[in-house]
Amino acid sequence: MRRKSFEAMQCPIARTLERVGEWWSLLILRDAMQGVTRFDDFQKSLDIASNMLARRLATLVEAGLLEKRLYSSRPRRFEYVLTDQGRDFRPILWSLAAWGNKHLAPEGPSLVIADAVTGAWADPVLVDRESGRPLAAPAFVPVAGPAASERIRARYGLFSAHRGAPLVPSGGGNGQPEHAAS
Amino acid sequence: MRRKSFEAMQCPIARTLERVGEWWSLLILRDAMQGVTRFDDFQKSLDIASNMLARRLATLVEAGLLEKRLYSSRPRRFEYVLTDQGRDFRPILWSLAAWGNKHLAPEGPSLVIADAVTGAWADPVLVDRESGRPLAAPAFVPVAGPAASERIRARYGLFSAHRGAPLVPSGGGNGQPEHAAS
Repeated sequence: MRRKSFEAMQCPIARTLERVGEWWSLLILRDAMQGVTRFDDFQKSLDIASNMLARRLATLVEAGLLEKRLYSSRPRRFEYVLTDQGRDFRPILWSLAAWGNKHLAPEGPSLVIADAVTGAWADPVLVDRESGRPLAAPAFVPVAGPAASERIRARYGLFSAHRGAPLVPSGGGNGQPEHAAS
Repeated sequence: MRRKSFEAMQCPIARTLERVGEWWSLLILRDAMQGVTRFDDFQKSLDIASNMLARRLATLVEAGLLEKRLYSSRPRRFEYVLTDQGRDFRPILWSLAAWGNKHLAPEGPSLVIADAVTGAWADPVLVDRESGRPLAAPAFVPVAGPAASERIRARYGLFSAHRGAPLVPSGGGNGQPEHAAS
């Protein structure tokens, strides 16, 4: 499957995807979060072939991120509306945008997250909801959860059965965390 | 280009990608953040064809997310190490993991972000660094930044020249934000 280059687009999300890989679907979600619901409007925004857009929309509907709704019966027309799952992608999109702004926008940001009332720009940072501490290494690390497979446990080395549990080395290890911060 | 299904993998990042689209590159970054640096180890972790892995690694090196370093001259061997740009992808990966945990892990999480010292699980949330307020709609909205193209301004409707500036309707608009929250 060939993909169109995002390079010429200015949106930091698109640039980020161009930098890292292909992800048309995220751009559809991005537009859906801006209120785009109709096939033609997605197509106009994304400049994407009809068959590819149709396929991506169908995938997102099947995945439960978009809902397909009849909005006109004569002619028969559908619109695509974000589900709660789809809306939950917002922080991911905004994190991608923040990355793009930081690393791919020497001319300054072209898209920022702002306070809807004051217009003040936000500086997105991922934190722990309870403590407010930024989720950065080495203070925080990914660890295998209770439903982890052997493969995941092997990869993440540690297993914490429930919130607040002490770290327990995985079987066969030397007791040292394998996730030493980069 | 065909891709291997991520569906059978348990990692919530992989599941998220399976749900939304293809993104091998993020899985390479994920592994790099766990300290994986060598071709064979990436391949073992990802179960990916050599030529595809080589291509993805080359792309990430070219993109400035990984650095290719000689670690043995006889035989000549290279390793792949995260750059600062690459490390900055961490919150994106962790956000993807959080989404996957929330929406794709009915059996419970298999990968969580935890305090490296206490083992307490973190609950990742994207906030504004200064105010600590969660970056959620409708309180926060994406707006065109100072470097925005006409296309971006048209899409995001509003233009805020600098942090703290009042919202200014884009040219030709009706003065109403077009980014009404979903």
